[in-house]
Amino acid sequence: MQNITQQNKNPKLALIVIGNEILSGRTLDKNTQYIAQMVGKFGIDLVEVRFIPDYEGEIITAVNNLRERYDYVFTTGGIGPTHDDITTECIAKAFGVEVELNQMAYSLLVEYYGGEGNLNPGRIKMAMLPQGAELVLNPVSAAPGFRVGNVFVMAGVPKIMQAMLDNVVPMLRHGTQVESKTVQVVAAESKVAALLTELQNTYPDVQIGSYPYMQSDGYDHVGTNVVFRSINKNRVEEAVRVLVKKLKDETNFEFKL
Amino acid sequence: MQNITQQNKNPKLALIVIGNEILSGRTLDKNTQYIAQMVGKFGIDLVEVRFIPDYEGEIITAVNNLRERYDYVFTTGGIGPTHDDITTECIAKAFGVEVELNQMAYSLLVEYYGGEGNLNPGRIKMAMLPQGAELVLNPVSAAPGFRVGNVFVMAGVPKIMQAMLDNVVPMLRHGTQVESKTVQVVAAESKVAALLTELQNTYPDVQIGSYPYMQSDGYDHVGTNVVFRSINKNRVEEAVRVLVKKLKDETNFEFKL
Repeated sequence: MQNITQQNKNPKLALIVIGNEILSGRTLDKNTQYIAQMVGKFGIDLVEVRFIPDYEGEIITAVNNLRERYDYVFTTGGIGPTHDDITTECIAKAFGVEVELNQMAYSLLVEYYGGEGNLNPGRIKMAMLPQGAELVLNPVSAAPGFRVGNVFVMAGVPKIMQAMLDNVVPMLRHGTQVESKTVQVVAAESKVAALLTELQNTYPDVQIGSYPYMQSDGYDHVGTNVVFRSINKNRVEEAVRVLVKKLKDETNFEFKL
Repeated sequence: MQNITQQNKNPKLALIVIGNEILSGRTLDKNTQYIAQMVGKFGIDLVEVRFIPDYEGEIITAVNNLRERYDYVFTTGGIGPTHDDITTECIAKAFGVEVELNQMAYSLLVEYYGGEGNLNPGRIKMAMLPQGAELVLNPVSAAPGFRVGNVFVMAGVPKIMQAMLDNVVPMLRHGTQVESKTVQVVAAESKVAALLTELQNTYPDVQIGSYPYMQSDGYDHVGTNVVFRSINKNRVEEAVRVLVKKLKDETNFEFKL
């Protein structure tokens, strides 16, 4: 089987989740799934995610490592007004540029907070951006995210991240949306394994994933979600038809599409 | 501020989440948070997480990269009976050893499936482990996880992963549990930023994290969770007391402990 990301020319995206609160288990990260689903609609493949601490060396290393390997890198977290928000400085260091007052960001904050007199050092910090940064507007709380090169820097608070992401998507090259179909088979994985291996060999250009589940819905059962993915819709549909026929002809397993 | 992981001698853990279904956004990963909380109770610090696809090159690279950097590496996902379960083979390749039939794993599967005659190739695959692997027992579905060197390989299905984790924890060196206290302040981050900076400077040995939230509970409000973390309980409590005093004396913000 080829990996899906090798089959197509879709842009490849890596995400860096910056946050001690995620690594300590205090907070459940939901941004990754939201971003994966959103960029997927535009034919951009999320191919790697890293959760790292709010620590300068780790942030710079991850950013520089991933921005060279992939078309785009997103970061979430660490761009607020407090002492532990160090992402912006780290991005500047990763690119070897200075942090400076961004006039447009400053104007947005002056307007949001109702006048220059209301800007304390924490708020001004949110207008200090790497030289050459392009703003990513944030209609929720005004303080912008930004882009430097192929790196897009967003907030960690989900509502704000989501608002920024809406403004990031139009800045990206779009690809071909990956077509995905799922067949739920009410049988343990080990009972369908041989059938799926045969199917995968017949359809090397379709990524066939097998995901076991354990469920208690009225009656306890185990089963297998078989997920077909490819940018070629016809091939996905053909592979699904072949599986359905085999399940009917060769097994007595219940299934649903 | 020092990073918490530099302050103590606790074992450092990296987690590799192997799974196309996570990267596609189809499935929300909850294993990371569960693992972070569980190992935290035993003084083991989760310091990095990577989500990577079910792709040999990526798995081998991530395993070899992280096992050299950290005390322990966990992996989740990809050890089932189907064609897309390639983690075991990749771990063997990462360590430069062969995969072979593990007699103990085989016996467990024979017992679970009710006799050798019921073992099809998919089931036998789950008894094929890297040479020298030590089993991690799995009371839920019999097929074991395993340890090679400092790498612990577990299932991706949460119930099975959790059962395996219970058996992994006693195999690890334990450290000192990090003490954590949260003060919830009903004020925007930018209003408490200066106060927190001062506090962080006074307590460089306590990691003070500031996490904004937006909430609608009767009345809409924004606020800040201030999280204090250190292995030194006394220092955490002292820093909390100082913050509480400052909030009372210098502000009119509501807060709760």
